[in-house]
Amino acid sequence: MNPLNPPKRLLMGPGPSMVAPRVYAAMAKPIVGYLDPYCLEIIGDIQQMLRVAFGTKNEFTIPISGTGSAGMEAAIANFTEPGAKFAVFANGFFSDRITEMARRQGGNVVRFEKPWGEVYGDAEAADFIRREKPQVVAYVQAETSTGAFQTGKAICQAAHDAGALVIADCVTSLGGIPVEVDATGIDIAYSCSQKGLSCPPGLSPFTVSPRAWAWLEKRAAPVQSWYLDLRLLDTYFRGRKYHHTISISLLYALREGLALAVEEGMEARWERHRRNHLAFVAAIEKMGLRMHVAEPKNRLWTLQSPRVPAGVDDAKVRKRMLDVDGIEILGGFGQLAGQVFRIGLMGSSSTEENIALVLDSLQKAMQAETVTAGKG
Amino acid sequence: MNPLNPPKRLLMGPGPSMVAPRVYAAMAKPIVGYLDPYCLEIIGDIQQMLRVAFGTKNEFTIPISGTGSAGMEAAIANFTEPGAKFAVFANGFFSDRITEMARRQGGNVVRFEKPWGEVYGDAEAADFIRREKPQVVAYVQAETSTGAFQTGKAICQAAHDAGALVIADCVTSLGGIPVEVDATGIDIAYSCSQKGLSCPPGLSPFTVSPRAWAWLEKRAAPVQSWYLDLRLLDTYFRGRKYHHTISISLLYALREGLALAVEEGMEARWERHRRNHLAFVAAIEKMGLRMHVAEPKNRLWTLQSPRVPAGVDDAKVRKRMLDVDGIEILGGFGQLAGQVFRIGLMGSSSTEENIALVLDSLQKAMQAETVTAGKG
Repeated sequence: MNPLNPPKRLLMGPGPSMVAPRVYAAMAKPIVGYLDPYCLEIIGDIQQMLRVAFGTKNEFTIPISGTGSAGMEAAIANFTEPGAKFAVFANGFFSDRITEMARRQGGNVVRFEKPWGEVYGDAEAADFIRREKPQVVAYVQAETSTGAFQTGKAICQAAHDAGALVIADCVTSLGGIPVEVDATGIDIAYSCSQKGLSCPPGLSPFTVSPRAWAWLEKRAAPVQSWYLDLRLLDTYFRGRKYHHTISISLLYALREGLALAVEEGMEARWERHRRNHLAFVAAIEKMGLRMHVAEPKNRLWTLQSPRVPAGVDDAKVRKRMLDVDGIEILGGFGQLAGQVFRIGLMGSSSTEENIALVLDSLQKAMQAETVTAGKG
Repeated sequence: MNPLNPPKRLLMGPGPSMVAPRVYAAMAKPIVGYLDPYCLEIIGDIQQMLRVAFGTKNEFTIPISGTGSAGMEAAIANFTEPGAKFAVFANGFFSDRITEMARRQGGNVVRFEKPWGEVYGDAEAADFIRREKPQVVAYVQAETSTGAFQTGKAICQAAHDAGALVIADCVTSLGGIPVEVDATGIDIAYSCSQKGLSCPPGLSPFTVSPRAWAWLEKRAAPVQSWYLDLRLLDTYFRGRKYHHTISISLLYALREGLALAVEEGMEARWERHRRNHLAFVAAIEKMGLRMHVAEPKNRLWTLQSPRVPAGVDDAKVRKRMLDVDGIEILGGFGQLAGQVFRIGLMGSSSTEENIALVLDSLQKAMQAETVTAGKG
């Protein structure tokens, strides 16, 4: 087997983002067992810092042993009993994934559809919930497929008035945008390690409100997933008994990634993401590209989705950026396939220098592709 | 946040085992995206080496993004339709876990019970399957809770004669004992990264026979788990389309851990495990302890389960070994709580020096505890 020698990429896609040297160093530290007092101490550190990042006092705040999609499945599998009415705000790829998972759990899914990239106003969101009277409501706070940010207060208020629990997908917000679980009223939030927190992928930060936990304790139907059963996970995280063998190396990484965020200060970190987002938008508009999300206030600071100019093949542009400059960005999919570039400014990747590098590479690649296309 | 400074443990429990420096170094390498050509190349390397370790030609041989228990759930969720008769050889903690998962998937579980530590003879195993006519059969090749090894040829033959698929739990065998998926006739096997392969936890090596894959392609009922749906995972591993964001750092680690195994040579590696197991048994019997698994041929080479001598509190002994010598071993649970020590000789942990260290520490801790108990 030849030596492991990965290329050095500038990761400017929708995740993973760049990993800080301190996080890499953490993964090279000696591992310990999953019941070792040191492992439990590290978990305690992570829980404390995750509460800060999520903006919550929720006791049940843990890293789930899987990616963001495992977190999504944990949220849906634990809080959807067969036959339960499950309302989805459906405006992107990840709300479609939520829909699919909820159906697999036996949920009776109702959807409020909007074109990808649009968001929901307070009144229409509340009307939908009042009309449907669901048991569970799900929305995507930060839609990675479109670059749109969805506010949640009106959704949560209407859901609580209807006696429903609210699941929010915070995969692309945590660590880069205020998630504000408690202030918003979110009951169940999940995220990932490899975007705003700039760790390697593999863990899903997860939090459950006392209200949702009380519901779960009374749930009669068994949760189909044993691996993601939150009450069983609680026997490990609180009860300190074996459930599964948590990945200590990923815990080390997450602990250090969170420490970097908390040491920077969440407010300062959010402000850095906001400032760099605005600088990116100004620069890309100067290049003549248009942001897919029309309203500035609805744009994510973490994930930018400029539209691909007419006549440009986004796959060729992206391939050239990777091959020539070692820069990764991704394209659109689903409704937005071929229509947007998806450029991340997340965690360690969100710097002025990286904006200059990615835009310079993008411009050169588009020019080269246009010339090639003209010749071909 | 204080600096991350884990204690240096000698990991001699049922996993994780000691991680080689080359594997630690791999995790400090720069990450790339999940669709980066380099990531796909690393996955290809892993698949090729996993086939060698599993003893299979199965095309569908992948690392699942979760721990060994996620692999177990993937096996059961994909191959158990609601109402399907599911036969379990129930002789330990992990066959109880299989039972619980199969019931959650709607399986009609029938169990052939034996005391923990015993195994099944060919004739009685085949009789059970012939009598029950199940659609799925599950057994634990290497039972981590008891230290027992279960041969599989008779089980697989009888299952195939009955038209059933066979799931084998290989969590504690892969990399330390011949698994021999193809020669045994196993249809679905899963394992983990942190035992015989001596990588950090977080990935579950998984393989599916063409026969089982053909069944899966015809399965009508949707798999409840989206995250662990093998047909969806295939769209990533073969189709190279986004499903979830695989943990590239854990892939680097697994690639290097597998390379160490393949470079050592699987046969030489198994022989090292066998030799060290026999040396351990000879030494522990000389200390006056008795192996829980009575028949030498039924003992795992990877996980030793000597019985706790009368009057010894295993929890106190283990705590002292960890506190004084930094050595982790674990105790029994379930039927064997307080009755056995569980001592791993797996992957990098399986050395003559480690046997000497763990037995010296065990002996001193037992003496200290006996003296303390006598005084108290």
